Amino acid sequence: MTDWGALAAARLDELARISEPGPGVTRLPYTAEHRAAIDRLSSWMRDAGLSVHLDDAGTLVGRREGPAQAGTFYMGSHQDSVRQGGAFDGIMGVVLPLVALERLLAEGTELPFAVEILAFADEEGVRFPTALTGSRALAGAFDPDTLSMTDREGISLHAALQDFGLDPRNIPALARDRGQALGYLETHIEQGPVLERAGEALGVVTAICGIERHQVTLRGTTGHAGTLPMEGRQDALVGAAEIVTAVNALARRTPDLRATVGELNLLPNVVNAVPGEVRMTVELRAPQDMLRKTAGETLGTIVAQAAERAGLEASHWRSYSQPAQACDAGLMARLKDAVAATGGAGMCLPSGATHDASAMADLCPIAMLFVRCEGGVSHAPEEYASPRDLGLATEALCLFLRGLAGDRPEI
Amino acid sequence: MTDWGALAAARLDELARISEPGPGVTRLPYTAEHRAAIDRLSSWMRDAGLSVHLDDAGTLVGRREGPAQAGTFYMGSHQDSVRQGGAFDGIMGVVLPLVALERLLAEGTELPFAVEILAFADEEGVRFPTALTGSRALAGAFDPDTLSMTDREGISLHAALQDFGLDPRNIPALARDRGQALGYLETHIEQGPVLERAGEALGVVTAICGIERHQVTLRGTTGHAGTLPMEGRQDALVGAAEIVTAVNALARRTPDLRATVGELNLLPNVVNAVPGEVRMTVELRAPQDMLRKTAGETLGTIVAQAAERAGLEASHWRSYSQPAQACDAGLMARLKDAVAATGGAGMCLPSGATHDASAMADLCPIAMLFVRCEGGVSHAPEEYASPRDLGLATEALCLFLRGLAGDRPEI
Repeated sequence: MTDWGALAAARLDELARISEPGPGVTRLPYTAEHRAAIDRLSSWMRDAGLSVHLDDAGTLVGRREGPAQAGTFYMGSHQDSVRQGGAFDGIMGVVLPLVALERLLAEGTELPFAVEILAFADEEGVRFPTALTGSRALAGAFDPDTLSMTDREGISLHAALQDFGLDPRNIPALARDRGQALGYLETHIEQGPVLERAGEALGVVTAICGIERHQVTLRGTTGHAGTLPMEGRQDALVGAAEIVTAVNALARRTPDLRATVGELNLLPNVVNAVPGEVRMTVELRAPQDMLRKTAGETLGTIVAQAAERAGLEASHWRSYSQPAQACDAGLMARLKDAVAATGGAGMCLPSGATHDASAMADLCPIAMLFVRCEGGVSHAPEEYASPRDLGLATEALCLFLRGLAGDRPEI
Repeated sequence: MTDWGALAAARLDELARISEPGPGVTRLPYTAEHRAAIDRLSSWMRDAGLSVHLDDAGTLVGRREGPAQAGTFYMGSHQDSVRQGGAFDGIMGVVLPLVALERLLAEGTELPFAVEILAFADEEGVRFPTALTGSRALAGAFDPDTLSMTDREGISLHAALQDFGLDPRNIPALARDRGQALGYLETHIEQGPVLERAGEALGVVTAICGIERHQVTLRGTTGHAGTLPMEGRQDALVGAAEIVTAVNALARRTPDLRATVGELNLLPNVVNAVPGEVRMTVELRAPQDMLRKTAGETLGTIVAQAAERAGLEASHWRSYSQPAQACDAGLMARLKDAVAATGGAGMCLPSGATHDASAMADLCPIAMLFVRCEGGVSHAPEEYASPRDLGLATEALCLFLRGLAGDRPEI
């Protein structure tokens, strides 16, 4: 009997070796490493009886045909890694559904719809200052302006696609027919500690959190740390500290809200000068947009109060905003049942990070299966999910597809 | 009748033009600008009947002889500025006592002791990573190791002194006879807002604050701002914010203590990562060493408590310490009387900054007269003290010297 978890682990190990030199995995889109990964994946897809092609956005598509007009169910994730990342982020979401499909076919299960396994070229946005190229193309949301963006060698995305043998002019035509898109399921490591803390191998994602980023600038008065008495100081860092404390407290008392001051810079930033200016970022993430928007408004109050108390001028603006993407209730319920059938609790949790599913949500209902990762570590060489958990995930994916097939009795 | 304030202002204006090009005044030690300033000062000193020489540390000395064995009273400050500094910091403390002495001589006052007007080459420590070269030499505290220190062009202090026509080998012999040193009075702009806020032109310094600097490092765990739940976060910035707030509160409730977090750096310092490490400085200044040391101990408790609450590892060490220098009670009382006789309140205040007087305290009793500066601004082209305040300071210096003469009836 095949150990599907061990098979998935072996394939991930093989793919992890396809990397630029250095610690961990570095596999950027439209590179020799990307080509080598495509070659390995294609060969496994063909062995599984899938028809394989590379679309003009660089997405590798392995398709198992279904009955005419029965529609297509999509499963996949991205092949690319961050620089010196791990062996699981992204690529695991390509390998596991392929293994699950192989298992179903090995068991003789026929599905009453077509299935496509997708390996997107670029989700991380590490090489070019854009991301989600392949999934946005399928959802009809590709932005041609991104083609002129360049990597750090000055190569444009347009040129990189051409050098890879692709024709960027065809990308807009990659948009799929909404009427035929049944759904998209992405399998991904959690990249956080929630499942591990709960002792669960698998989790069902409720929503991909919306994000807003705020830029806060506090201006006070710098001066000599010795000659300026405490009374009447306008110390920008004192105001910033109050904001950091209040933002942290706000998120800790608001379930599902995550708030982070990730960047903070002082001027003049020398040991014997009162800080005259602080520039800081506040990032808010929540699975419900209302929750995030309310937190954004509270942040405005926090900034204004802290500035007033410390005698500072504050400017504050939202520099980025991305709505939450709720997962489809029907697909979630089906996935929960599948996880429960593997012996899991069917734990539900939001995804704090963005995924290809965020873009695919413009095309069709989405769902995400999270796999526990050790210590919550991701984007690092130490990233790890156990073969046992990979096996449980494979099983859950099989059960999910069988359940979905049962819902569609036309075969 | 001579307007002594206007005369002092005109001389300071003339000296301010002796500067490297650029905004404000840039006059570094052992440069062409230093030479030009020496030439102007020497000529005024000679006109006032002083004997003038340049010692081998680059200190310009203008001496008015007194009765044999009656001792010498020193008055002065430094000729150098910071880069793009102002027209008053340092050099005003050379010009004003010279003008005061001229005024006394013009009035026919004889002093029962010798007086030396000193223009030290280097107090700011801008060109070489050392400072107080001239005053330390007079106090017998010159460190020959500093001679090998280099400026940003790679020129050593030793070579700079030689190029200036000085012989560094003679510096140790510049140490003055403690038995003959009656005292040192330094006149300086306040470099802070205290006198201006109080509506006082002049102030009497009680002590030059001691300084200690602490390096604090907080180590938590970085992670993705989206995937890491609030619960269990070890956010180094949250701990740092608590320290900033507590240090500020400590100084605000402790009279005479000044505490500043001037430098703070985050790692990784990106918008979507929980800060894993913060390195920060805490500087404490106080006119009494016990007060400063107690605050240093309280800081240890603050750091430990903040680290524990935020789940961080903390390391914390004192990287620098300099004792406070109390001003001489007798000279202070005399100076207070003099200020009061000009119509001032004789306000007493500590000096938060270090001065040549800090080094001269090793030789003899010290005192300092502070002159109000506009907006508390210093080390900037906008630095300003009014001709009226310069006149009041000149008058106070004359009264001070006359009072000192009255104390010594041997003439």
